[in-house]
Amino acid sequence: MYKDAALERALIWIEPGPVVLVTTRDGLKNNVMTVSWTMAIDFNGHIALTTGPWNHSFAALLRTKQCVVCVPSASLAQTVVGIGTVSGAQVDKFKHFGLTAIQAKYVCAPLIDGMLACLECCLEDFIEPYGFAILKVLRVVENDSPKDARVLHARGDGTFCADGERFDFRDLMAQKLPPGL
Amino acid sequence: MYKDAALERALIWIEPGPVVLVTTRDGLKNNVMTVSWTMAIDFNGHIALTTGPWNHSFAALLRTKQCVVCVPSASLAQTVVGIGTVSGAQVDKFKHFGLTAIQAKYVCAPLIDGMLACLECCLEDFIEPYGFAILKVLRVVENDSPKDARVLHARGDGTFCADGERFDFRDLMAQKLPPGL
Repeated sequence: MYKDAALERALIWIEPGPVVLVTTRDGLKNNVMTVSWTMAIDFNGHIALTTGPWNHSFAALLRTKQCVVCVPSASLAQTVVGIGTVSGAQVDKFKHFGLTAIQAKYVCAPLIDGMLACLECCLEDFIEPYGFAILKVLRVVENDSPKDARVLHARGDGTFCADGERFDFRDLMAQKLPPGL
Repeated sequence: MYKDAALERALIWIEPGPVVLVTTRDGLKNNVMTVSWTMAIDFNGHIALTTGPWNHSFAALLRTKQCVVCVPSASLAQTVVGIGTVSGAQVDKFKHFGLTAIQAKYVCAPLIDGMLACLECCLEDFIEPYGFAILKVLRVVENDSPKDARVLHARGDGTFCADGERFDFRDLMAQKLPPGL
């Protein structure tokens, strides 16, 4: 079940560098792309992402200025990779991969059911020479009972890693932690 | 021992979203900062990173237009966090944290001994309103016998994850993999 969370928590989901699924809705059609080139850029719910012109739905993001950045768990690895290997120009990826779209609150692109978190975003800026989409997160929802809480990290060579051992340095970093986290 | 690797392999190190140590050399002084806001941006050895004006050595990066991006293993977590909690304006971090600087080949900033990989970089562009440093990787060296090959991912709230289970989808992604990886 998705629960609303503070916008500042967008950082928690993007800073670790997970592979994400980015949904768009162009006209009447939902689409989704797999992206691993993302970056947290501040403590106030802004993130950057880039991909290439090979992504059909990146054009939809630029046109509609809206998307939802969804963080899948490691157990969805095969689906995540599959989504990245076919084009929304040829395939209805929601149908093909058995994804359930959930209506978002602030954007027309859908949330995907069963993710760890979804970030509803609007496109605030596009940095042309590098193809950087600067996204402002409008809403964060988090799965309050995930079966698998590990995120997935792409290594760029077709291999991936799930989260493993966790370290807690909250005490040591107390003075550096942004408010609310 | 560090061995030279193809520039295209910069992607392998940055795409997974690890915490990195970024060294600079300003005048006669080496410095190092902990950064987790990084992003791969192409297949040709360009990466982006951003941090904030609170980082003494980010100014050095902008001034000297050179740095080395070092990928530490998860077993160095405490050192990585420590480096992020003190300022190079007050402390000689190489001395304080027992880091060994190794002369780089193309930049004046040093490699750090004992990392998984080090990327010698020059600053190719700086995107002012967002503080994005666009780095061109000039040289990649990789540790050919790491005791711990897991990278570390920051979660933004003072907790961190090491790499865990690995998944291999090279066959499924064969047509999407960039040459040389």
